[in-house]
This record gives sequence, structure tokens and C-alpha cells, in this order.
Amino acid sequence: MYGVILAGGSGTRFWPVSREQSPKQLQKFVGSGTMIQNTAQRLLPLVPIEKMYVGTHHQQALETIRQLNPLKFSPDHLLAEPCSRNTAAAIGLMARMIADKDADAVMAVFPADHVVTNSESFIKVLQKAKSLAQKDFLVTLGIPPTRPETGFGYLKQGAEINGFQDTYHVEQFVEKPDVSTAQKYLELGTYFWNCGVFVWKATTLLEELQKHAPDIHSQLSTLTGCLQSSKGKLAYLELDENGCEIFSSLPNISIDYAVMEKSSKVILVPADIGWSDVGAWNALDDVSEKDSTGNILTGNVLARDCNNSIIHGQNRLVAVLGLNDTVVVDTPDALLVCAKDKSQDVKKLVESINEKGHSEGKLHATVKKPWGSYTILDSGPDFLLKRIEVLSGEALSLQSHQHRSEHWTVASGSAKVDRNEETFHLKVNESITIPKNAKHRLANTGSELLIIFELQFGNLLDENDIMRYEDHYGRA
Amino acid sequence: MYGVILAGGSGTRFWPVSREQSPKQLQKFVGSGTMIQNTAQRLLPLVPIEKMYVGTHHQQALETIRQLNPLKFSPDHLLAEPCSRNTAAAIGLMARMIADKDADAVMAVFPADHVVTNSESFIKVLQKAKSLAQKDFLVTLGIPPTRPETGFGYLKQGAEINGFQDTYHVEQFVEKPDVSTAQKYLELGTYFWNCGVFVWKATTLLEELQKHAPDIHSQLSTLTGCLQSSKGKLAYLELDENGCEIFSSLPNISIDYAVMEKSSKVILVPADIGWSDVGAWNALDDVSEKDSTGNILTGNVLARDCNNSIIHGQNRLVAVLGLNDTVVVDTPDALLVCAKDKSQDVKKLVESINEKGHSEGKLHATVKKPWGSYTILDSGPDFLLKRIEVLSGEALSLQSHQHRSEHWTVASGSAKVDRNEETFHLKVNESITIPKNAKHRLANTGSELLIIFELQFGNLLDENDIMRYEDHYGRA
Repeated sequence: MYGVILAGGSGTRFWPVSREQSPKQLQKFVGSGTMIQNTAQRLLPLVPIEKMYVGTHHQQALETIRQLNPLKFSPDHLLAEPCSRNTAAAIGLMARMIADKDADAVMAVFPADHVVTNSESFIKVLQKAKSLAQKDFLVTLGIPPTRPETGFGYLKQGAEINGFQDTYHVEQFVEKPDVSTAQKYLELGTYFWNCGVFVWKATTLLEELQKHAPDIHSQLSTLTGCLQSSKGKLAYLELDENGCEIFSSLPNISIDYAVMEKSSKVILVPADIGWSDVGAWNALDDVSEKDSTGNILTGNVLARDCNNSIIHGQNRLVAVLGLNDTVVVDTPDALLVCAKDKSQDVKKLVESINEKGHSEGKLHATVKKPWGSYTILDSGPDFLLKRIEVLSGEALSLQSHQHRSEHWTVASGSAKVDRNEETFHLKVNESITIPKNAKHRLANTGSELLIIFELQFGNLLDENDIMRYEDHYGRA
Repeated sequence: MYGVILAGGSGTRFWPVSREQSPKQLQKFVGSGTMIQNTAQRLLPLVPIEKMYVGTHHQQALETIRQLNPLKFSPDHLLAEPCSRNTAAAIGLMARMIADKDADAVMAVFPADHVVTNSESFIKVLQKAKSLAQKDFLVTLGIPPTRPETGFGYLKQGAEINGFQDTYHVEQFVEKPDVSTAQKYLELGTYFWNCGVFVWKATTLLEELQKHAPDIHSQLSTLTGCLQSSKGKLAYLELDENGCEIFSSLPNISIDYAVMEKSSKVILVPADIGWSDVGAWNALDDVSEKDSTGNILTGNVLARDCNNSIIHGQNRLVAVLGLNDTVVVDTPDALLVCAKDKSQDVKKLVESINEKGHSEGKLHATVKKPWGSYTILDSGPDFLLKRIEVLSGEALSLQSHQHRSEHWTVASGSAKVDRNEETFHLKVNESITIPKNAKHRLANTGSELLIIFELQFGNLLDENDIMRYEDHYGRA
């Protein structure tokens, strides 16, 4: 079975841990890994890593590959989307790619940022779904509701499929209900949450796309012809200029709307698997371990007289006292304190933050780059201090700055520095000055992580004061 | 009139803004300055700065002087106590010093960390108290209670003093009452809060000390003989070794207990002056401006749907959502989130923090030193990065380290660096390496603040790995 993980989330509801540049699926909330690591790990019993594909926004491509690297995920199984076109386009393109490779392939589609607490049941349900998919059904998993949830779409169970126990036609796809309707669904027991997990033969999906969304289907073959390898060591799949244009012009619709609500091949397999979409901070209550007074404490936290609160710290000391049903989330550059029942409104809060022009809505203090990351540690009127981490084998672009000089000191690892015509090899405790306008490049040619501290001087200290002459990642 | 400001607070209730090394009176909560700056400023209409004295713990001496420097406070009017012996010893010693200088002196005593919102009434009350003090009374200000407070001692109003309107004998000093007694006091209108402001002739106080606390009084002349100037540019008064020993052996009692509760000369002047002892975070409600939904917001704060909350931020973005009656206090290295009605328990929380061995209970991220301060910005297994600020004209000790080398880069100002036999003058963007075991000294000989970044390397990076050969502040 092939697996397709859709990692397109924006993650504003988990601000400040998730940010636009580093959304929810790349963060760690529950279990041993990040959400996408846990998602891939969960599938391994059924889907070997060689048959796993990931679709994500090109901004997150490298970080996603690096997170899946320990599972031996192949970088060229990642498809970087130039923009978000919802699930229909992404799934269609993946189905085309997989069908071109293996005409009989059964593919399963998973959101990257959900939690399943009962992995064993999950695998069993997927095995059943696989055998149904081989009979040309479009299988969707239905989660038995545990509360009158108004935030999800529902699947109404229809007649049982002949010859298949506990497997049903879908009588209706129901939009998010109001609370009394949701309560009724909960009591009836014949409505299920639509969790976005689908299993089908790639060819079946393509046929149904052709029937119900021909405007998408008609472009898929052209698009696979536009796929190319990205620049850089971790080369992933991206669309060329023509492909980007076509992809961007596809309708921005979900696979539910494009196919599932229309196709007669859709069937429902109930899946009691401990699923949660972990839609906001308060959803951690459903999937995390709690202390004796109902708190979920992570990081360097000291709690006294607190109940049913979620305290998500990192390195700083977070001391909490007398809190009830409160969420506290601490990150190096931004802090959230929120009544738990207002968790859904964090999205609006982030909108306000962005409207006010604060970068904290979009970027973390540590800004990821193709070659590693940087963190601003301190600044003054005419200086700026950064910690720069360069991954083994990576290099910044060959560049120069008009308005600043830089002083670098190696704190860990070893650096190769090009400065105009010269090349230097710096070890720990060695430093170098880069004057204004000097062409320079910093590279980590060693096997360890390179950490340098960069002190910038100048009257204009701006990320945009950078002239790139050459770049391993196509940014020149 | 002479003024004595007692600045001995430990400030655990205002953690994490106040810490053992930098207590409440040195922090800014209300108004334009820190609490001790506001206290001194408030007295200036009656007490010229040349007649102002400050008693504090020696750890806070330099920072206190630096904070009062803009008011032209004379460093040698600060008496640094070797240990805290409560108010009787400190006040007695101050009274002795002042009486030796001016036998007729009237002195007024003030806690450094209280707030008075009606300065005009305050000055009027003090003028009245001064004229009463000249008639050999021990005058204490009584605050008309505004709530059934159980955290203060009360003064019970006695008979009116002949010939003085609204001035009373004190019938009784009452210990902190229970809530029903406090409610009764509030209704009766004849009980006042004891706010710790006293006015008397220095000689009157000394006579009463002799009568009621002869063990303290008998040592005062010896102690004034033990006073000496501290080392360093901002020379304050301290006790020599003998004096420290005597001072430490004095009874650890308050002036209330030693004299006021026993003396027949004590009188009460009601003082409706908008006083608050600002005893804990929730007390800011009484003295700070609020927004339309009752919040007190300080720093880089974004609040949505919050009511009656105190959000005290600094530079980091603090986003709060749906909070009611909650206190959020953000500092660079520690965060407090607390139900407002649990504010008094912050003290216990700090005890837990100290018990667990966290330095955040005692030290700020920025650690004050006699020459300026340092802040740890980053660290790794064998490196440590510090921002070091050296005040104009100050210098670190001549020192060496056994286990680390250091790399310094000047970010602002100019530095004089001694390294073994050589001397270097470094400007912005210049750097120098200090090898292990090299004797070195960093000084700011310029007129601006000197900021350097120090990157330490070694397998043992410890504040204690320092051999001092010479020090301007007597630490060698």
C-alpha cells in the first residue's frame, strides 16, 4: 500500500508553538516525535517508507524532509506545492504520480497533524479498507463521535455493503452541524466524523476525478510532466514555472467536495481508533497524560494549586499558581495565556498579531533556512548579534552586504569561510571579520553542526541587505 | 527635616520582577521611577537631598546609589547593613548618626517600597508631624482603613492631644486581626493602619530607645565609631569588621516592638494620603491606571477579551485571551501566571523555586555587578556567551581563569584591556582573545556605556573559576 501524507496545515490555532513558517505538523505535542513523524511512524507497519509520499508547501519542504530523515524517507518522495490549492489538486496529482508508477496501487491518504491513540485498531481498519479499495471502492474512515462536536463534517451511515460486515454506503455528507443537531447525531449512533483518511486505488480515484472534477483531472498528466528536482542536496519534487502556473489555476476545493460527495463508489468504514484532529490547545486534553489534578505540564514548569490546565513551557522557568482551565504556552519570543474554553479564538488573536505587523505571528525566534537556522540574540542601535547554525554539508549563499560588516566566532564545529579571493578554515574559538561589500560565504564542511556567533555592525541592519551571487538552493 | 529611607525589602512577593538580588524597591511598578526613586522624589519638597539617608543591605548598595544618582543623592549617605536586623537597629543607628551631626534634627522614617498617590496631603501631614516631633513626640502616621485588611497591624486611636486638632494618643498597637475583627475596625473608624512612617527628633528616639531597648541603644555609639567608607568610586558607609559583628548580634526586632508599643510619647496623626504598601501583585489594582475592562497592561502586551487582569510584560510579545482576575508577569528568564486572589502565595512559590535549586528565585537573567552587569545569552557543552555591560569609569577585577579562554568583541563604547604585560584600546567591532591563565582586566575608560560580547570556551565554565589579583570594590 502507498501512503500519502498531506502536510498543508497553517497551524495558527497552535500559536505560538506553531507559526506560519513552522506549522503544527512540524511541532511536537504528544508522543515521542513531531506530529508528522508520529504520522509516518504509525503507518510503517502497513506502508513501507519507500511507498510513502508527502505533499507540503515549498516553504516547509526541507524541514519536513529533515524531520522524516531518521525514518529513511526519500527526499524525492516529497512534493512541494507552490501554493495551497486545498486537497483535491494535491491528492489528484499524487494519484497520477502513483498510478503512473504502479497501475494497481492502493493509496491511503492521511492528514499529517492528527493523533491516533489506538495504533493497533488503526492498522486493522486500514487493512480492511485496503481490501475494499481493491474492489474499486473509495473508502473513507468514519470516527464514532464522542461528543456533540460542531467543528467537523459528518458522514451519515447508509445501507450495509453486501458481503462486508460493518461497512456501509454513505447516505450523506453533512456540513458542520449546530449543537442540537450534533447532539442528535451523537445519540443516533449512525453519524460519523469525517476524519480525512481515505483509501482507494489510485486509478479508481482518477476515474472518479475525471467524472466529477474534469477541470482538475484534465491537468494532471500535464502537471506530472512539469515535475522537476529542486536544487540542493535534499532534492525534492517541485513544479517548473509552467507547472506552478497550472497548479495555481486549479480550483481551490477539497477532495470531499470534488469527489466524495458526488461519487457512488464512496463507502464508510467505522474506525474506533482514538482519533483526534487536535484542532486547538484544549484538544490536548483528549490525547495527553495528565497529573492527578488534571494538568498537562511540559517543559520547565513549577505548578502550585492548579487544576485542568495546560502548561507548555520550554527552557525558561514557568511558575503557575492557582490556575483553573487555563492554557499557558511559552516560547522564546512570544507567550500565550488563554482561558481554555477560548482556545479556538487563538486563530483570531494571531490575525490581530499579524495585522499589527508583529513578526511573531509568522516567524519563530529561530528562523529556519535551507542551510540551517539563525536566532537573533541581542541588538542595539548599530549592532545585531545572531547565533547561526549551519547543518553538516550545507552552505550559505555567496553574498555581500552594503551596509554592514560582520564578525564571526566559531562556537562549535568547524567553518570554511570564503572572503573575496581568500579561503579560511576556522575552528572553535577562532574568528574572522567580514568587511562591508566583501564577497563571502560560510560553509560547514565538517560532519558536526557548525555554530557561529555573528555580530553585525552598521547603520542599517536588515535581512534584505543581501546581494546573492551564488546559492545552492536556487535563491541567487 | 532629615529623611531616612529604609530599603531592606526582600521582595519575594513581586517575583519574578523582584528577586533577592534586586528587590521590590529597586523595581518600577507605578509612576515614572522605581519605588525608591519615587519615595525619595516624594520627599523632596520637605527633605532636601543633602538631608536624605538610606539604609539597605550591602548587596543592594551600589544599585541603590545609582538609582538615586539622578536626584544628586550623596553615596556617603547610604548605610550598607551587613545583614538584616529588622528596623530597630537600623533606625537606631541612623538616629545616632543624625543626632551626632545635628542635635536638634527632626528625622522622618519611610519604607522605600510603598506608594502614596496623594503627595500633596502627604507633605501636609508630614509638616504637621514635624511640628509635633519638635515637641518631643514620637509621631506615627495612621492610614484610615478602606477595607477589612488582615495583613496589617492597626493603631487604636486614643484621646485627642490637648491643643492639637485631629492628633491622638495611641491607645493600643494591635497585631494583624482576623477578618471579622478587621471588619469591626473598619466600621468603628477609630482604628488606623500602621504604615511604618514615623517622625521624631533623633534625640527623642534615642532617649526612648535607651529606656525601652537599652541593649540596642548601648551599642549605637560604638557602632558609629565603626563606620567606614567602602572601596570604589561610589563610596558608601559600611561597618568595619568589628561593627559588623556588633550589628549582627543586635536583637532582630522592629522599632514598633522595641519602642512604639512601649513609649508614652507615641502619638497618632491620621493620614488620608492614598497609601498602599503594594504588598503583592494584586495590590497594583489600588494604585495603577486600568483600561475600560479593568486590566493593567504594561509592556508588549496584546489582550483580547480579558477583564480585571494584571499583565506585566517587557520586550517579548505577551498575548492574552479570555483571562479574568489573572496576573501574568513576564521576564527574560522566568514567567509567573497566577490567579489574582493567590497573589500572597507567590512568596511560597518562590520558596519552592529556591528549594529546587533554581537560580531564578534569587538572581535575574541580568546579574548586577559593582562594575555593571552581565547576561548569559547562550550556552553549549563547552561554550558560554555573555553580554557584558561596564559602566563608564568602572573596571572588572584584574583576574585570570584556569579552565577557560575568552573572546571579546566590542559592540558599543570603547574598552581598555590589560592582558599580561600588554594594554589594548578596543573600539566597536574590534576583538581580542584572552587565553587560559592570562592575567587580564576589562575597563571602561570612556564616557559611554561599554557593551562587549564575551564568548567563553572551556570544559569548565563556572563563575567560580576566577582568581582575583586586584579589585576596585574590595573583592580581591
